[in-house]
Amino acid sequence: MPDTLVTAAILVIGDEILSGRTKDKNIGAIADRLTETGIDLREVRIVPDEQAEIVAAVNALRARYTYLFTTGGIGPTHDDITADSVAAAFGVGIDVDERARAMLLERIKPEDLNEARLRMARIPFGADLIANPISKAPGFRIGNVFVMAGVPQIMNAMLDEIVPTLTSNAPVISRTLEAANTPEGTFAGALALIAKAHASVSIGSYPSMTPQGFLNRIVVRGRDAAAVEAAATAVEAMLAGLTR
Amino acid sequence: MPDTLVTAAILVIGDEILSGRTKDKNIGAIADRLTETGIDLREVRIVPDEQAEIVAAVNALRARYTYLFTTGGIGPTHDDITADSVAAAFGVGIDVDERARAMLLERIKPEDLNEARLRMARIPFGADLIANPISKAPGFRIGNVFVMAGVPQIMNAMLDEIVPTLTSNAPVISRTLEAANTPEGTFAGALALIAKAHASVSIGSYPSMTPQGFLNRIVVRGRDAAAVEAAATAVEAMLAGLTR
Repeated sequence: MPDTLVTAAILVIGDEILSGRTKDKNIGAIADRLTETGIDLREVRIVPDEQAEIVAAVNALRARYTYLFTTGGIGPTHDDITADSVAAAFGVGIDVDERARAMLLERIKPEDLNEARLRMARIPFGADLIANPISKAPGFRIGNVFVMAGVPQIMNAMLDEIVPTLTSNAPVISRTLEAANTPEGTFAGALALIAKAHASVSIGSYPSMTPQGFLNRIVVRGRDAAAVEAAATAVEAMLAGLTR
Repeated sequence: MPDTLVTAAILVIGDEILSGRTKDKNIGAIADRLTETGIDLREVRIVPDEQAEIVAAVNALRARYTYLFTTGGIGPTHDDITADSVAAAFGVGIDVDERARAMLLERIKPEDLNEARLRMARIPFGADLIANPISKAPGFRIGNVFVMAGVPQIMNAMLDEIVPTLTSNAPVISRTLEAANTPEGTFAGALALIAKAHASVSIGSYPSMTPQGFLNRIVVRGRDAAAVEAAATAVEAMLAGLTR
């Protein structure tokens, strides 16, 4: 376990997400994996397929967080500009990488490896490759930035390879308490006092609507099991008191 | 139609999205509505329930885009800090708003309107309210920032009220052409040439995986119907040539 908190950000690259045509599934999937691993996801951004926007976001996020994960824009078409943009963000060159070309040749016949497909082997200088067991075109890691595919099945396969290499914190322990048909406003005052008394944990209250009415979930999260348990017990007692 | 492009950003506020516990549905819903309306969504950020993070993101995004839409953090519990954070971002005061209190009293009995519930009537000075037909606690608009609930049903109801008030561009016209079982690498070179020849439209290629294999969709988007049609016709002819 490191001395300081290991943090992360996600950068989703793609006009199709901003237009609504494609509904992102990668943010939730990466968030789940990072939480399981004990890494704090602190920020997410979605930007269009424009180099200046990608460069600015990569540089802002890689400077601020331990890790940055990007998704999208590493295919063979003209709108796939992530690799070139990341190279520009790091101020390094980029060219066809022989390791990446060899990976592509595992799936593509040499006579079919045209200029467009070779774009998928363009890797910034100094980067390590991330294998793609599904369609072979690799992602890459440069510095603290992991560049992954946007297709969810491929992104998840790349994440399987990346996660074991990450430094992580002690995992966050979480306890969820349900308050069905009890409006948040009934317990919000008491919950605020519990949150204040148990400042080493984070306590969130999350309303959702079900056909049966509002369902509130109170989630206690923290890295110290005893502290989480103590706060959860206090919330439980408070909720039980409401229905007396 | 305005002279310059009307743009927008979304700011999702919530630890529960960053932890993966809740999967966001609002980004896609807002993106769809903006696209229908002819407003260009240019950026999305997700930040935690921390005032400094919310203030920084609100100020960065409201300065840069025509409109900013926020979701989450306007309930009665201690972790609902969006209204106070937006007031801080604008440098204005905040207090219980009598119009908002009256809205809450449409649903909550006066004796049940405790301090926690009154938090939902705290509105930055100078803001206009956004009605909430579902649970009454309003959102608000201040400057070019629209502050909405995080619960999707309520967020969508607020959006219904907001959208007719927005200035918009001519809507974007979009044509989608499918290339089933034709790898992107086969047509990427030809597509890049078409994109260059039809520079007034944007052409994206979006691969997805189905049980039958890769399915690529090529999307031509633009505000000039004739230009979109011309580019789509060129893409169609190019794809037809591949299967000859």
